[in-house]
Amino acid sequence: MHAFEEALELIKRGSEELLVEAELNEKLKSGRPLRIKAGFDPTAPDLHLGHTVLINKLRHFQDLGHHVMFLIGDFTGMIGDPTGKNATRPPLSREQILDNATTYREQVFKILDPEKTEVCFNSRWFEPMGASGMIRLAALHTVARMLERDDFAKRYRSGQPIAIHELLYPLCQGYDSVAMKADVELGGSDQKFNLLVGRELQKHFGQAPQCILTMPLLEGLDGVNKMSKSLGNYVGIDEAPGEMFGKLMSISDGLMWRYFDLLSFRRAEAIAALKEAVTEGRNPRDVKVLLAQEIVERFHGASAAQRALADFDARFRQGTIPDDIPEVSLSAAGQPLTLAQVLKQAGLTASTSEAFRLIEQGGVRIDGTRIADSKVVLSSQGCFVLQVGKRKFARVSIT
Amino acid sequence: MHAFEEALELIKRGSEELLVEAELNEKLKSGRPLRIKAGFDPTAPDLHLGHTVLINKLRHFQDLGHHVMFLIGDFTGMIGDPTGKNATRPPLSREQILDNATTYREQVFKILDPEKTEVCFNSRWFEPMGASGMIRLAALHTVARMLERDDFAKRYRSGQPIAIHELLYPLCQGYDSVAMKADVELGGSDQKFNLLVGRELQKHFGQAPQCILTMPLLEGLDGVNKMSKSLGNYVGIDEAPGEMFGKLMSISDGLMWRYFDLLSFRRAEAIAALKEAVTEGRNPRDVKVLLAQEIVERFHGASAAQRALADFDARFRQGTIPDDIPEVSLSAAGQPLTLAQVLKQAGLTASTSEAFRLIEQGGVRIDGTRIADSKVVLSSQGCFVLQVGKRKFARVSIT
Repeated sequence: MHAFEEALELIKRGSEELLVEAELNEKLKSGRPLRIKAGFDPTAPDLHLGHTVLINKLRHFQDLGHHVMFLIGDFTGMIGDPTGKNATRPPLSREQILDNATTYREQVFKILDPEKTEVCFNSRWFEPMGASGMIRLAALHTVARMLERDDFAKRYRSGQPIAIHELLYPLCQGYDSVAMKADVELGGSDQKFNLLVGRELQKHFGQAPQCILTMPLLEGLDGVNKMSKSLGNYVGIDEAPGEMFGKLMSISDGLMWRYFDLLSFRRAEAIAALKEAVTEGRNPRDVKVLLAQEIVERFHGASAAQRALADFDARFRQGTIPDDIPEVSLSAAGQPLTLAQVLKQAGLTASTSEAFRLIEQGGVRIDGTRIADSKVVLSSQGCFVLQVGKRKFARVSIT
Repeated sequence: MHAFEEALELIKRGSEELLVEAELNEKLKSGRPLRIKAGFDPTAPDLHLGHTVLINKLRHFQDLGHHVMFLIGDFTGMIGDPTGKNATRPPLSREQILDNATTYREQVFKILDPEKTEVCFNSRWFEPMGASGMIRLAALHTVARMLERDDFAKRYRSGQPIAIHELLYPLCQGYDSVAMKADVELGGSDQKFNLLVGRELQKHFGQAPQCILTMPLLEGLDGVNKMSKSLGNYVGIDEAPGEMFGKLMSISDGLMWRYFDLLSFRRAEAIAALKEAVTEGRNPRDVKVLLAQEIVERFHGASAAQRALADFDARFRQGTIPDDIPEVSLSAAGQPLTLAQVLKQAGLTASTSEAFRLIEQGGVRIDGTRIADSKVVLSSQGCFVLQVGKRKFARVSIT
């Protein structure tokens, strides 16, 4: 296998779509460091593992010697959503954005090499552009083609309003690629339309169009919904080592392989070997430990990862937690659930009164920690392992 | 009749639509000078009488003591049509625009009182607005409502491209009204949609919405098509007095009343009285002379108007030009026509060879001027009076 073919394989690993592969081939063959772009919203610097899928891919490019450009969309961030209808897009002050950028840096530099990462702000080219520049930019695309974007098309057909500035945002994102002379842009699969606008604008400005690489959304700990803070099924990259380790050990064996693909930096062959070992009888729990350790180490260092493993072992392995325990999904329907209710609904006790009794006798653990207060309420959504007595376990996700 | 009712009558005279009359009533009753806005394209400062319909209406407002704001759209003029598809909208340099503005001033101050006219340039508010301001402005209107505009709706339905910046221009025009705090905006009837956008934006910015007054398009000398330079059926306001006088004398009696309504500053009662006089037998030609004199006087002064009348009389009245002469419409289909062909097609000669002969004998006049060269070609479109011998006349329009 040629070096560039190996590179291409690493680039494509875990990705959803690569457009246009032949073009990327050519670019890779040129041997020059490619300019790799990914844009980030300046509003939400509190990253979880879901966000890192894209950042990991940037890291792959970095490992291959390419130039990574981490774009913070401060220009549109300072505008926010002028209609005020979009609560997730309030206008931010320059100070807030710079604060968020600092937090971003701290977080992403646990994955990316700061020496090989250029942090860009798009106000640098949009502010000098002026109102007339924005009109000229708007002239480069037609209304009809913009309304082909899935979400616009749906809203337009169903009579939901689309404000005119919403048509400008994809053009701004596309123009970023022009200003940054991007060779490749990475984005979530929901970004494909906008990434393609970048290709067009680059052609208009006489540049070779960027290749686009879309990454899938990472499933959360429940293995079903996408990882999201509001669903409570996430692992924050700033979470304490023990918590992070425990959460990762709580995922199903199937989800574990997905996480290996999208979150591990192990080589593809190494992951294939682990899979084969499990097929041949190795305990998947041991393999999950490798994943959890790798990820805790990435964000907290090697010794923290070791300590987390030891703590986890002390609580679980010594309590002889079985390798596969039943998985139970409960719907809280927005209401807090008492621990006793959860125990009954998960089938770990016959009644809530039995549950109360067992809790008060100290026979109940959540993620290995004994809970002796029968009034405990599980108010948040999430995923954890319940243990009743020595032998009864359930992996419970509350949605 | 109250003063404000009289004012309202003058304002409405010749207009096509007034929205909202009750609001304008209130504004007029307030007694304060109203801020009257009309916008002009900075590309075409070569005005003809068709353009003056709007300017005359501004003059009415001025006569009523209101504040007239003559807006030159230099901001969008400097952008032009960025798609390059619209040849009538090339980008202009600041110098060209200032030159054009000077020409505008010279021309419109023949109608407007310079002391009571504020000339505005919209770059004053659009340049400081920046790209972010343009995005905020774009947020104030939806795509669907913009596509309700007649021409957009047609183009969208028929699959003709609409570039996104085209949706921004009506918003810019509307924002002009906000920046200028306009009480009333005047425009052609084709401008109604844009004028209404101004009302909406003013409401958004906490201003009382402007009233809008649309003026009809003036028919050209042929009485059929709108007056336009490219159709050749126009009277330029910089044309020489004699030419202007002659062109106005060439119009039909019906069109004359239309011109009285839209071009004369005579009071409505005075015009009604002239109409009555004609009904009772007064020669309409004498009334047409009054119109021609008024208009020549407006652009060239009283003595020039007198001279033009005297010259005209010398050529026509003494040649006993009849009061109503047949009207003939010829289509040149883009080809130049020889005078001989026109004479034949107009039925003034039996053949082109007869026409040649009569021309060479000195028996043919165009607009009273003898033409003795049989090779004369009528290359331009236009309207004129042909005379053969003493008694044969035709008013010919070539389209």
